[in-house]
Amino acid sequence: MNAEQVETLIRGDRLTLSRILSQVESQSEAGKQALEALFPFTGRAHKIGITGAPGAGKSSLVNALTRQLRRQPDAPKVAIIAVDPTSPFSGGALLGDRVRMPDLQQDPGVFIRSMATRGALGGLAAATEAFSQVFDAAGYDIILIETVGAGQAEVEVVNLAHTTIVVDTPGTGDEIQAIKAGILEIADILVVNKADRPGADQSVRYLQAMLEMGYARSGAAGHHAPESAVKEASEKTTHPWVPPVLKTIAIESQGIEDLLGVIQAHRKFLLESGTWQVKERQALQKAIQRAITQNLMDFWKAKITPELFEATLQSVVERKLSPESAAQYLLRTIQWL
Amino acid sequence: MNAEQVETLIRGDRLTLSRILSQVESQSEAGKQALEALFPFTGRAHKIGITGAPGAGKSSLVNALTRQLRRQPDAPKVAIIAVDPTSPFSGGALLGDRVRMPDLQQDPGVFIRSMATRGALGGLAAATEAFSQVFDAAGYDIILIETVGAGQAEVEVVNLAHTTIVVDTPGTGDEIQAIKAGILEIADILVVNKADRPGADQSVRYLQAMLEMGYARSGAAGHHAPESAVKEASEKTTHPWVPPVLKTIAIESQGIEDLLGVIQAHRKFLLESGTWQVKERQALQKAIQRAITQNLMDFWKAKITPELFEATLQSVVERKLSPESAAQYLLRTIQWL
Repeated sequence: MNAEQVETLIRGDRLTLSRILSQVESQSEAGKQALEALFPFTGRAHKIGITGAPGAGKSSLVNALTRQLRRQPDAPKVAIIAVDPTSPFSGGALLGDRVRMPDLQQDPGVFIRSMATRGALGGLAAATEAFSQVFDAAGYDIILIETVGAGQAEVEVVNLAHTTIVVDTPGTGDEIQAIKAGILEIADILVVNKADRPGADQSVRYLQAMLEMGYARSGAAGHHAPESAVKEASEKTTHPWVPPVLKTIAIESQGIEDLLGVIQAHRKFLLESGTWQVKERQALQKAIQRAITQNLMDFWKAKITPELFEATLQSVVERKLSPESAAQYLLRTIQWL
Repeated sequence: MNAEQVETLIRGDRLTLSRILSQVESQSEAGKQALEALFPFTGRAHKIGITGAPGAGKSSLVNALTRQLRRQPDAPKVAIIAVDPTSPFSGGALLGDRVRMPDLQQDPGVFIRSMATRGALGGLAAATEAFSQVFDAAGYDIILIETVGAGQAEVEVVNLAHTTIVVDTPGTGDEIQAIKAGILEIADILVVNKADRPGADQSVRYLQAMLEMGYARSGAAGHHAPESAVKEASEKTTHPWVPPVLKTIAIESQGIEDLLGVIQAHRKFLLESGTWQVKERQALQKAIQRAITQNLMDFWKAKITPELFEATLQSVVERKLSPESAAQYLLRTIQWL
C-alpha cells in the first residue's frame, strides 16, 4: 500500500476501503502491509460493542443508533462490524429476506461490514481488531461491533471495545438470564429493548439487582474470598462508572436519544478518568502478543518438516509419546528449547 | 504422579480422580505430570458432545442418556463434563436451586465435573481435552460433554468429540434457528427435545430440510462454487453417515432408548469406516500444536524482560511502531527471527 492509496482511503474512498478490508480479512500480504501503513493514523475512533442473546434486537438497536448518530450536528461517520451470525447486517443464510436498512447502506457516512464467525484465521478478536484499525484510519468516528453474547470468543471481541452495551429483552427465560449473568460483568451500559412488551420494568429491576450483586460479590461465581471483595471495592473507587439500565424500543427509535446521551457520557468518563488510555494500552498489548504468537506459529511450521511432524504424530497415536513430550521434542529439534 | 497413584486411579478411586482433575484444571506441575503419566492409558473412551441453544434441555438429555447407559448389560462407566454455564450440572450461579440429579451423583459408575467457561487457561478446548484424557485413563467408557452451541470456542470443544448431538426444541424463533444453521454442519445426530410441545414434527421436517440443503450446498454461506459441490459429493461417498433426526422428551425419558441405539450405530460407523482413527489422529495433532504454542508462549515471556516489553509497547502507543513490527522487533531481540 503506497502513500497515494493511504491518501485515497483517508479522503473517504469507499472502493479502496472495501478492497483493503477484503485484503485484511484474507490475511494476504497486501492486507498486512495495509495494516502496517495505516497504523499511524489509528487511535481516534470510539469502539462500541453491542452484545446480547439472539433475538434481543441488537441489529435494530445498531440501526436506530446509527441514524441517531448521523443526525447529530457533527454527523460522525459510523462503521458497523457485524460479527453476529444472526445479524441481518451480515446477511445470515436464513435471514436473507429481512429488511436490510437501505437508507443506511446509501448513506456515504455509514459503512457496514460483516464478518464470518467461523474459520477466521487468527481468531475473531484479531480480525475485528484489524477491521477496526482500517475503519479508524479511514476516518470513521464511531465503530459499532455487533456480536452474540454467548461464547468465549465473542466476549473477547467485546473486550476490545471502549464501551460495551448489553442488550436484554423483557420476560426472557431464566436459562438465558444465567448466561447474561456472565455477560453483565462486561457491560458499561444495559439496555432493555422491546420495552413495550410486558415485564420490561421487571427486567430493569432484575438487571439493577444483578448489577448490585455484582458489586457485592467478586466477578466469578464461587470466588467469595475477602481479598477479591477488597479489590472490587478499590476498583469501584478508581472507576466510579455505575452501568445505567435503559429502556428502548429500537424499531420505533424510542429511547435511542437517551442511549446516545449515555454513550457520550461514558466516553467523557473514559477520557477524564484515564480509563480510555488504559484500555487503548491493553488493546495494543494484546495486539503485540497476538502478533508474537502468530509469528512464532508461522515460524515453527516453516521449520518443522511435514515428515518430522508426521513421524512424531505417529508416535503419539501409538501412545509412545504424549502430546506435550512431542511438542518439546519438536521444539528441541529446531533448537528452540 | 507415581505408578501407585496411576494404579489407584485406574482401579477407580474417585478421590484420586477428583484431585487429578483439579490439578489438571489449575495447570499445576502436578497436573502436567499426571497427564503425562496417564497418556499411555488413553484412547478407549467414546467422547460424545451434546450442544444446542440455552433452554433446549441438554442437561435433561444428558441425565436421561446417562441413566439409559447405566442400565445396559455392560453398564458402561459414564463421565459428564459440563462446559455449559447454564447447566445444572455446573451449578450455575442462578440455577442453584435446581434438581441436581442425586441418583446420578450417588452412582459409583458416574462422575460429573463442571468447567468454568471463562478464564480457562489455554482455552476451553485444551481444558476439555485434558479432562477427557483423565476420564479416559480412569476407565470411563463414555464421556458426555455438554456445551452451549453458540460461540466459536464451544464449537471447538465439540470438535474433539467422536459423536456430536445437536439438541433443538419445537417452535424456536427464527433467529435462534439461524445460529443452529451454523451448528448443523457439525451434527452427527439431531434431537428435537421437548417433543410433546406443539410444532415438534415441523421442527423435525425443518431440520431434515436444512440437512438436505447442507448436502446440496457447500458448508459456508456464499460458497456456491461448483468445485465445492463436487468435493461435498465425494465426501458424502466416503463418509456415508446421514445425520438422523430424533424426537425425545428427556424429562420423561422418552425416545432415549432410540437415541442410544443411534449413538451406538454412529460409533460402529466411525470404527468401520476408519473415521474414528482419523478423528483421533486429528485430535492428537491439534493437541501437539497447542502444546507447541503453549511452550513457545511460556518461553518468549521468560526471555523478553518486562522493561523491554513495556518500552516497545510505549512506542506502539505513540504510533511509532505497529503491533506487527513490535512483535518482530521483540522476536529479533531474543534471536528467534
